[in-house]
Amino acid sequence: MGEKMSTSQGFIIIAERINATRKSIRRAIEQKDADFIAKEAQKQAKAGAHYIDVNAGSNPATEAEDLKWLVKIVQDAVELPLCVDCASPEALKGALAVVDKTPMINSITPEGDRIEGILPLVAEHNAPVVGLCMDENGVPCGVDARVAAAKVMADAVKDARMDISNLFIDPAICPISTSPDEALAAVEAIRSIKAEFPGIRTTCGLSNISFGLPNRNVVNRTYLAMMMGAGLDSAIIDPVEKGMKALVTAGDALQGRDEFCMRYIQAARAGLLD
Amino acid sequence: MGEKMSTSQGFIIIAERINATRKSIRRAIEQKDADFIAKEAQKQAKAGAHYIDVNAGSNPATEAEDLKWLVKIVQDAVELPLCVDCASPEALKGALAVVDKTPMINSITPEGDRIEGILPLVAEHNAPVVGLCMDENGVPCGVDARVAAAKVMADAVKDARMDISNLFIDPAICPISTSPDEALAAVEAIRSIKAEFPGIRTTCGLSNISFGLPNRNVVNRTYLAMMMGAGLDSAIIDPVEKGMKALVTAGDALQGRDEFCMRYIQAARAGLLD
Repeated sequence: MGEKMSTSQGFIIIAERINATRKSIRRAIEQKDADFIAKEAQKQAKAGAHYIDVNAGSNPATEAEDLKWLVKIVQDAVELPLCVDCASPEALKGALAVVDKTPMINSITPEGDRIEGILPLVAEHNAPVVGLCMDENGVPCGVDARVAAAKVMADAVKDARMDISNLFIDPAICPISTSPDEALAAVEAIRSIKAEFPGIRTTCGLSNISFGLPNRNVVNRTYLAMMMGAGLDSAIIDPVEKGMKALVTAGDALQGRDEFCMRYIQAARAGLLD
Repeated sequence: MGEKMSTSQGFIIIAERINATRKSIRRAIEQKDADFIAKEAQKQAKAGAHYIDVNAGSNPATEAEDLKWLVKIVQDAVELPLCVDCASPEALKGALAVVDKTPMINSITPEGDRIEGILPLVAEHNAPVVGLCMDENGVPCGVDARVAAAKVMADAVKDARMDISNLFIDPAICPISTSPDEALAAVEAIRSIKAEFPGIRTTCGLSNISFGLPNRNVVNRTYLAMMMGAGLDSAIIDPVEKGMKALVTAGDALQGRDEFCMRYIQAARAGLLD
């Protein structure tokens, strides 16, 4: 690790549960069940989230309105900033107009529409942004293609005069059930990207790694620790998942971000690691 | 990861419990309580160990006899090969004379006595050997000093005409409570050593990482996963520890060593991952 980790800020948890690809969330959005959404937000905040991701699905007819509704409900329910998860510049613009704290934006990709439409909004709000290593052909294979995708996004962020530390590269995770060699390649991509672009940060949408397998939680946690061993700065996870917060707390200390292991020891005393 | 992992052999667990630095083991050795030792061996075998480490302490007056006694008891109790853990060439020689399966030998270091006295015994038995990155000044700091220590041992193993795959480098783990920056340095050392010396293997005596902290098991497991993310091939651990075998099973699949995730899926079906 070339760079010493900052101990002032620990690992950043982006909480993923409020996502319209989940059936219960889709139903709550359709029925405008504000109470259900508010409880999901509060549950994740209590479990240690730093950002609450909100994703309203990708139906162009309703996404813009649904996303604005989600933003309002969640920011009324919790103090945390949001991570606005949206591929449409138009829907994103509408949501950003009602956001009351600087959110994270999820995501840009190295491609035309997504980077050209969304990056100006990111720069305007001086917001942290997820940069997903994915192009028209899908998820890149191996280490080098991911580093190349990160370079396109790092260059664009610099051109937009944003601080590189606002860019969180997500190497894009494939299921080990179908791509067994890609798991360690993505770990190595995290290390390479941090070494090649000093100051850049990294994140990962974790749960795809265990798609199609039983006991997904065991694979998710083990892989998150592997990623943290390569210097991962943040992850898009379900903090409510069993053992997840304990693992992140230990991982933080192991990354040297938790001075004198104080947060770890406090969590242990509070019974949060049992 | 330059080299593709072999799927023919999974991650190797060296089970650490039969060690005279533990009070209950020291007492069992003193009282020649064979039943207690046999049960410790069987418990670890059942938990998924591939080698049973035996360490009789370092009292020159008794170590040689105690170690021979341990070897006999353990190999009567389980089918597994042993990992003979001993710094004295004389005591090791005596133990090797009574061993009935090719054992692993734990350990050589890059220094005079330890490498000159022990490596000939390793070569004679064509045994796998742990190479511990530690010199007269103690544990080396950072990545480069560990790679340099590995090079001394890799060269010596080649000079002894042994296959480099029989050398398992242990980067030597320091507690994060006192050396917070050394945890990721040792992870990076694993990656560098595997990249620099193709075919070499790696291991680590894990539990020192959590010395002085509460809920040590959480730190141990998280760190083992970090190490596996860098390509670690083996670890000296307590397989009986909660969640350890589940983590190794998931880590194996994530390393691409478990074809079609079959061992993982079988373990899940057997309820071993809950």
